[in-house]
Amino acid sequence: MATIAKTSLEPLAIGIDIGGTGTKFGIVDRVGNVLFSGEISTKKHKEVESFITELYNAIAPLIENAGGVGRIKAIGMGAPNGNYYTGTIEYAPNLPWKGIIPLAKLVQDKFQLPVVLTNDANAAAIGEMMYGAAQGMKDFIMITLGTGVGSGIVANGQLIYGHDGFAGELGHTIIIPDGRYHEGTGKYGSLESYASATGVRLTTLELLRKSNHPSVLRDIPEDEIDSKKVYEAAIGGDELAKDIYEYTGKVLGMALANFVMFSSPEAVILFGGLTKAGDLILKPTREHMEANVIQIFQNKVKILVSHLKESDAAILGASALAWELK
Amino acid sequence: MATIAKTSLEPLAIGIDIGGTGTKFGIVDRVGNVLFSGEISTKKHKEVESFITELYNAIAPLIENAGGVGRIKAIGMGAPNGNYYTGTIEYAPNLPWKGIIPLAKLVQDKFQLPVVLTNDANAAAIGEMMYGAAQGMKDFIMITLGTGVGSGIVANGQLIYGHDGFAGELGHTIIIPDGRYHEGTGKYGSLESYASATGVRLTTLELLRKSNHPSVLRDIPEDEIDSKKVYEAAIGGDELAKDIYEYTGKVLGMALANFVMFSSPEAVILFGGLTKAGDLILKPTREHMEANVIQIFQNKVKILVSHLKESDAAILGASALAWELK
Repeated sequence: MATIAKTSLEPLAIGIDIGGTGTKFGIVDRVGNVLFSGEISTKKHKEVESFITELYNAIAPLIENAGGVGRIKAIGMGAPNGNYYTGTIEYAPNLPWKGIIPLAKLVQDKFQLPVVLTNDANAAAIGEMMYGAAQGMKDFIMITLGTGVGSGIVANGQLIYGHDGFAGELGHTIIIPDGRYHEGTGKYGSLESYASATGVRLTTLELLRKSNHPSVLRDIPEDEIDSKKVYEAAIGGDELAKDIYEYTGKVLGMALANFVMFSSPEAVILFGGLTKAGDLILKPTREHMEANVIQIFQNKVKILVSHLKESDAAILGASALAWELK
Repeated sequence: MATIAKTSLEPLAIGIDIGGTGTKFGIVDRVGNVLFSGEISTKKHKEVESFITELYNAIAPLIENAGGVGRIKAIGMGAPNGNYYTGTIEYAPNLPWKGIIPLAKLVQDKFQLPVVLTNDANAAAIGEMMYGAAQGMKDFIMITLGTGVGSGIVANGQLIYGHDGFAGELGHTIIIPDGRYHEGTGKYGSLESYASATGVRLTTLELLRKSNHPSVLRDIPEDEIDSKKVYEAAIGGDELAKDIYEYTGKVLGMALANFVMFSSPEAVILFGGLTKAGDLILKPTREHMEANVIQIFQNKVKILVSHLKESDAAILGASALAWELK
């Protein structure tokens, strides 16, 4: 965290990234420095009102440190199922608040600042375009591999919002018909059921039950198995753990092939926890993407891992929305 | 075919639509009247040079009838795997010419007119936007269900070309992993293997072999079975024939669900031979699209059938490209 130069009178933006577990926020300058930042729990707030109160109480002192509310141009927010056009969150399976939540209005009323909201992965895509791996690209797809799978699609240099602001829900596309059940959506075989931290955990439980292969993962109680433990087992040489990443990469690669044949991006940019597994997941992902695209797309599309600092990227992306506000 | 008013000096455009079997062409005015039109075989030309010679010999008299080459602004062409940026056709599985064909340049040299080329389904999408079911829409997906499956995607009011001009190959997206083999691409389980005239034929052969259900289709020699005969059987009440369309609609509906979650279009516009089956295919398509999209997309996206006259639509779409030329 930097100290702000007292002589600078440049405007600042607030970026807020709402995730299923936690909400990160920061005050950001025009060139992408995160000057002040913090985090609160999303999950513990059953009501959106108490969430916004805690958010305000956490951010207000940062605004004071940054020189007061007069220096803040606007608030940019990213959230699952966040809608750019309506400023609402609608039926977000991974958030505690159900139905349609007028989030932008609630935050605007509390902070008395202009608010712009979008899908969290759209925000990340804008962040990559302004400060990250997608600088200079006009056609790319951002995929966030966290607890769930999010996505933001840029074509012709513009974020694709669709007719209603909900474009880019690639985590919910069906990759394996009649495949694994997704509790949040009630659908079967979606990308998110496989290529997320949750998906890796489920694949692990399935493989442990189905096979007799020895594995260090058998020594871990089932409810403690998570993608981090699988990663540790895999880099320790555990074959079953490697198979789990191989399979996850296979499903992700098949999905990416379909996305490539949709918008023919220059690159797919991956972001989030699963990418820490590096080539364990990237190698099968690349292989199966290439194996499933038709010839005109082969060996053309880069798979890149975001190099933005994870703690900053979501905030930067959300804040970038504020700069776009007229 | 209309006669041209001698007093009119408005410029005209030539639209050429190259399909795997035949190539249609016409001379079109600005408001979408096809003044002169014709068709030649694509399939019989093993070499692209002889194809272009026959095309020129067929179109040259129409140009004379329309008032001479001076009245023609440009030629717009749609072709499978046609590339807007490079003017080439690359590795088109359904065309007789292999590899990379510099089609726009060859036609330009022969006709001495500016030529703009794109994917045939992109051309159809532009046609729908200018003259058809997509007038006034900024976000829609055009799907052509013919011998193969083509697509054109419009988002933010613009055709999505992708970084290399090849976006919108939705017919080749994998809907059923490890599913039916596609001879043209060597891939398994693509939409085109199921939801095309070819796919309906293959589904029919599979169902006839797998089941013992009585069907009038059993009286037809296998090599004469095509989607038209299946349609006739289905409207005659044949249960097996109805199952074939039900299954085709199921696969198409699953695919459309994925496309909707990508770009959130206002409508999906279907065009081509299979749409003649009407509700036999549209009803299961709608059902399975709705069943596979997450809640935020449900009951929002229209499935429309193009109302452009089939013989004109492709020509209109291709000619529309010519008007866009600066």
